[in-house]
Amino acid sequence: MANTGRVTLPIQVGIDDEITELARRLGADAVRNSDGTELPEIAHQLVDKVYSTYFPARGDQDFALANPHTLVNQYLCSPRSTAPATGDLVIDVMEGYFRTQFAPKTDCDVKRWWQVIDRTTGQEVAADQWDTTPEGVVTIRNPQPFHVYTVGFLADQLWDSTQMYNYITNDWHLEPWRVKERPYDVRKAGVWEYAQDALKKWLRENPEVDVVRFTTFFYHFTLVFNDEAKEKYVDWFGYSASVSIEAMEAFEAEYGVALTAEDFVDEGYYNNAFRSPSERYLQWIDFQSRFVAERAKGLVDIAHAEGREAMMFLGDNWMGMEPYGKYFPRIGMDAVVGSVGSGATCRMISDIPGVKYTEGRFLPYFFPDVFNDEGDPVGEANSSWLQARRAIVRFPLDRMGYGGYPSLALKYPAFVDRMEEICNEFREIHELGGGQHPQNAPIRVAIVNAWGKLRTWQTYMVAHALWYKQIYTYLGIVEALSGLPFAVQFLSFDDVKAGALAEVDVLINGGVAGTAFSGGQAWLDAELTTAVRAFVARGGGFIGVGEPAAVSHGGSFIQLSDVLGVDREQSLSLSTDRYPRIVDNHPLLADVAGTFDIGEGGGDIVNLDRNVEVLAYVDDSVRASLNQYGKGRGIYLGGLPYSFENARLLYRAIYWAAGREEELENGTAWLTDDVRTEVAYYPNTSRIVVLNNSADAVSTTVRGLGRTWQVELAPMGYQWLDI
Amino acid sequence: MANTGRVTLPIQVGIDDEITELARRLGADAVRNSDGTELPEIAHQLVDKVYSTYFPARGDQDFALANPHTLVNQYLCSPRSTAPATGDLVIDVMEGYFRTQFAPKTDCDVKRWWQVIDRTTGQEVAADQWDTTPEGVVTIRNPQPFHVYTVGFLADQLWDSTQMYNYITNDWHLEPWRVKERPYDVRKAGVWEYAQDALKKWLRENPEVDVVRFTTFFYHFTLVFNDEAKEKYVDWFGYSASVSIEAMEAFEAEYGVALTAEDFVDEGYYNNAFRSPSERYLQWIDFQSRFVAERAKGLVDIAHAEGREAMMFLGDNWMGMEPYGKYFPRIGMDAVVGSVGSGATCRMISDIPGVKYTEGRFLPYFFPDVFNDEGDPVGEANSSWLQARRAIVRFPLDRMGYGGYPSLALKYPAFVDRMEEICNEFREIHELGGGQHPQNAPIRVAIVNAWGKLRTWQTYMVAHALWYKQIYTYLGIVEALSGLPFAVQFLSFDDVKAGALAEVDVLINGGVAGTAFSGGQAWLDAELTTAVRAFVARGGGFIGVGEPAAVSHGGSFIQLSDVLGVDREQSLSLSTDRYPRIVDNHPLLADVAGTFDIGEGGGDIVNLDRNVEVLAYVDDSVRASLNQYGKGRGIYLGGLPYSFENARLLYRAIYWAAGREEELENGTAWLTDDVRTEVAYYPNTSRIVVLNNSADAVSTTVRGLGRTWQVELAPMGYQWLDI
Repeated sequence: MANTGRVTLPIQVGIDDEITELARRLGADAVRNSDGTELPEIAHQLVDKVYSTYFPARGDQDFALANPHTLVNQYLCSPRSTAPATGDLVIDVMEGYFRTQFAPKTDCDVKRWWQVIDRTTGQEVAADQWDTTPEGVVTIRNPQPFHVYTVGFLADQLWDSTQMYNYITNDWHLEPWRVKERPYDVRKAGVWEYAQDALKKWLRENPEVDVVRFTTFFYHFTLVFNDEAKEKYVDWFGYSASVSIEAMEAFEAEYGVALTAEDFVDEGYYNNAFRSPSERYLQWIDFQSRFVAERAKGLVDIAHAEGREAMMFLGDNWMGMEPYGKYFPRIGMDAVVGSVGSGATCRMISDIPGVKYTEGRFLPYFFPDVFNDEGDPVGEANSSWLQARRAIVRFPLDRMGYGGYPSLALKYPAFVDRMEEICNEFREIHELGGGQHPQNAPIRVAIVNAWGKLRTWQTYMVAHALWYKQIYTYLGIVEALSGLPFAVQFLSFDDVKAGALAEVDVLINGGVAGTAFSGGQAWLDAELTTAVRAFVARGGGFIGVGEPAAVSHGGSFIQLSDVLGVDREQSLSLSTDRYPRIVDNHPLLADVAGTFDIGEGGGDIVNLDRNVEVLAYVDDSVRASLNQYGKGRGIYLGGLPYSFENARLLYRAIYWAAGREEELENGTAWLTDDVRTEVAYYPNTSRIVVLNNSADAVSTTVRGLGRTWQVELAPMGYQWLDI
Repeated sequence: MANTGRVTLPIQVGIDDEITELARRLGADAVRNSDGTELPEIAHQLVDKVYSTYFPARGDQDFALANPHTLVNQYLCSPRSTAPATGDLVIDVMEGYFRTQFAPKTDCDVKRWWQVIDRTTGQEVAADQWDTTPEGVVTIRNPQPFHVYTVGFLADQLWDSTQMYNYITNDWHLEPWRVKERPYDVRKAGVWEYAQDALKKWLRENPEVDVVRFTTFFYHFTLVFNDEAKEKYVDWFGYSASVSIEAMEAFEAEYGVALTAEDFVDEGYYNNAFRSPSERYLQWIDFQSRFVAERAKGLVDIAHAEGREAMMFLGDNWMGMEPYGKYFPRIGMDAVVGSVGSGATCRMISDIPGVKYTEGRFLPYFFPDVFNDEGDPVGEANSSWLQARRAIVRFPLDRMGYGGYPSLALKYPAFVDRMEEICNEFREIHELGGGQHPQNAPIRVAIVNAWGKLRTWQTYMVAHALWYKQIYTYLGIVEALSGLPFAVQFLSFDDVKAGALAEVDVLINGGVAGTAFSGGQAWLDAELTTAVRAFVARGGGFIGVGEPAAVSHGGSFIQLSDVLGVDREQSLSLSTDRYPRIVDNHPLLADVAGTFDIGEGGGDIVNLDRNVEVLAYVDDSVRASLNQYGKGRGIYLGGLPYSFENARLLYRAIYWAAGREEELENGTAWLTDDVRTEVAYYPNTSRIVVLNNSADAVSTTVRGLGRTWQVELAPMGYQWLDI
């Protein structure tokens, strides 16, 4: 096996010998600096390639301070304020916000760019009925007593969000030479010219850099702190921090639509990814993505002209780069690197089209929060690696790497040992897989939601891979799929209406009712519901998870309740008796040992008639069901938090939905007896790899091609078999 | 103590000696027959009064069979049926229904009285696009492929619902002399004239009857059986079985509105009590109640003319009698009797205005389902009595009684002993209370929902006192209040808008979002929300339970989120960080020993700012909170299933909401230290009664009037104290 290549090591100055030895052990062929570390002079002696971070929108604070008109703007919503019984209503729009991060932008036509809305009626308050002080204290004259009002206001971003986060988290106020970095907006006067020159100059001054690691481009995801300097709002997908008067005027010139504060403030929801996107908001994303792609291409071209590669970090100021959007391939980006927190975030990176290679930054970061006496760096590395490995086997990242201070990692020899093993495993997947993806099962799967392809592997997420109580139930769908042998498409509702189901065997929809992922009012569209019904009736499979296709209308809540044979009890049909046909020990749930864990999903789900087979019934609620619908099938699952059992359940459910469940029984479909294990088949090299996703030693039978193998696996182990 | 009076004993023939002894032991002063038993000749020697059942709408099957045109009608909804890809859609409207109970009514202008609706679009299908066979097999020509259709159709009721239930439940098919009783509609030709004559004749033939126990009048609550002769739909408040072409034509003549099937079918929800009632449905209730009251008065007048009392059983065919409606007092009914299954159902009877006396029929019925070797008649009597006793103390029923076959009860001497004790306790409440209600606390409480006064003590119920998973969480509110010392009003949203809060100190709203009890879209009305806000701001209290005032609008789900300081997380604001101010050991929850049990209520409830005090926080969700709002307070409770702790919690919450919590501390408010006990104070007789609601022996301190008493209570015991 090759024991070098495909690995990027973070390095730092002052420990040249140790770095050299570490690079050799890990087989690193590239090195990088981080935010806060510098490249040592030996960098190029160690490896083939040297990466360096580059910050196009905040890297030069001399420029930022000299050009205060270039600050990036952001739309914010004041606190919801109830008008008194009599008299004026006064709202300090900045109440609750971090005044070091934002200042209200009052040096503009506030009557045009700000907006006061009566949330009780939904009506805008006339411009002549309110005024603001320069500090953003708004007085609404003669408001409706006891109506609730908000002010949507434009603010200046005084502090780049990631730098603010790092600054506060790492106590940089103790290092007086650290400045609070102000972001500048490439759309504002003089910035674009400056940005090009600055990059050219930097490239000339840093000839040792092979790869410009853009960290990242122009607009930060939405990250707002509160008046106690703590996180107040975070949306990794949000465009609220991409606005400016210049951009809105350009938008109006192109689309003929004068956007207002409310188009961004969105009742205080700020168009987060769980909101069904409005047509205008989708236009805004397209508009900004086109602009960002054009400007990013400009910088990438400069790097290329200097013979360097351009790599993008998928995070921080990534808004508008949209790796699955239509403008991304035009940029000519050579590579994308991103943090791998799970199988889904791994696939989010590895599946990106139009780049030469992808790279995963693995956990844990070599930072003091984990590398301390209470920390468990080996444990974190293992859990992260095991969850990502399933996905890497399916659709390999081209490269892997780490981040942070290697001096910290070196203090933990067991961690270094484990890193070395992981790097070798990573290379082995590429080598023994013969440079091919393993074979997929012959069932084409699609997930449908309001976002479609744009949010490929990015569904049900708030802040990248962070856990939220309300999302893990559904995140499990994509997490399971990230390591299952199916080609997965992400479709929008419009795609489905345009006929995309012709290329699909099993369609999945799920999430919380009213969100963009379940779809909300999209399901009032008969064109959509009939397209799915026709698809299932002619033999397709539909899997609904949680509150699929859910919007109360016409006597049902799940608008495909006829397909699924179940509906949600909204406490409006309690008068109706249900006689569930409970089918115990159904093979679809063969791998669920105890109660089917549906996380936070479900609620009161009832069977609609006695035809639907209820496969799991707990607390008077259907947790899993199977319904024949024409030549196809509808399968309901209450939720699907990721677990070995649930990933396997989804594997079986997809076969059942496709009407191909006999392949699970007759040994045609690949299957391991133990749910802790999974198998991937490489027909070109006649090999299989069997993964043990658990920390236990496992003995399992593997079935496929009508044959069986018995495999013994060490904890977290794997085996390649020539077959 | 008086040991006779206020008790009605069911009797039967053939056991005269035993009945005589039983009547003496219980102190019965009235006897009754039941459906299925006859009065023995000794009846009048035993007691002062003899009751006899009377069935005005099904009592004479000779008449029913001779007049088939008089059958009562009912609107039903066909199965939801999805149109095929091509061709016609055929729907057998009776599929799933019990053909012995119903027949489709096709001997009418079906194009006028039936209705086909495309549920996908919500549009009615043109009359020329469908036809039906006489058997109700409907063909829809050229339906929209894969749209869902239903047929709302008029049916004949071939079998009275209660008699059907009794017949099937008691295996009356084994008794060939039993007929399936057909109901006749007093609105149809000849029935009213017949009904008056029949009652006159019956009264003349039954001179021994003192009290005509109408069981009940003309229209049954909605009770539909399925094709396996099991319950398919039950709504104790439903008017679906009160329709007829005659009634709809009369309605149109009066209101100028041509009702259609959909006005009754209501998307398949049949206007059940959880649906926010439409204006037309409220008109229909009013229209039918007026008619029923007029006809009922006719029969009551006949009874009175013959020197008899008229008593109404609150159940079975009670639709239109509406004891809290505006027409009820005009009827001149002497008494109402109803089944007591809980404190709330007890108050539902005892609070009825405009009658001379009320009577509770206590559980268990002397029927073989409980009186058998596995049954626990004493246990059922105890739990029913303990739950009802709290309510009886607050607002006494005038009389009590039992039902069924005394021969069965007599086989269980321990049960007879316990009945004797209960009858004595019941009389003692009247005697030692001095004929007065105990003193209420000085806080006026109101519950607001779509129904208001009409459903006094009838909220959150599907089928009388039956347990449903979706209701116990909210039924606990009224169950707790039924035994608490507060004057309780039931207000409609219109009442609130009309100024009813001027007479209220604490307002309660709660239930599942979108139901008539929470209120759904009613809360989009600014007149309503501002009325409540103004009420709280000037010092009132608002208690929201579960999903109060809930309808997604303008950036909030709970439309009074500003009053409560909390809102429901709809998975639309996950990006917003919450920093709950958790206040442990708050005195409002002083009596909750462990985790506050909110039943099925709550979901993800989040604090909106740091002002609101979070009193209970479980699984990242607020279960209880307290918010200052102007001079008043908003209190949120996730749910309130009835328990000793939760009843006490509500007692405290009402004091806190009213801003009078210091009275709980300083001994002004009546309070017992042990939540299993409650106290009632009778100022006129200077007595208190302390109830032990539990099966444990309890020693508790009682506080009130600035004094304390130490009381020892036997299991289920009580003590009267002269103070």
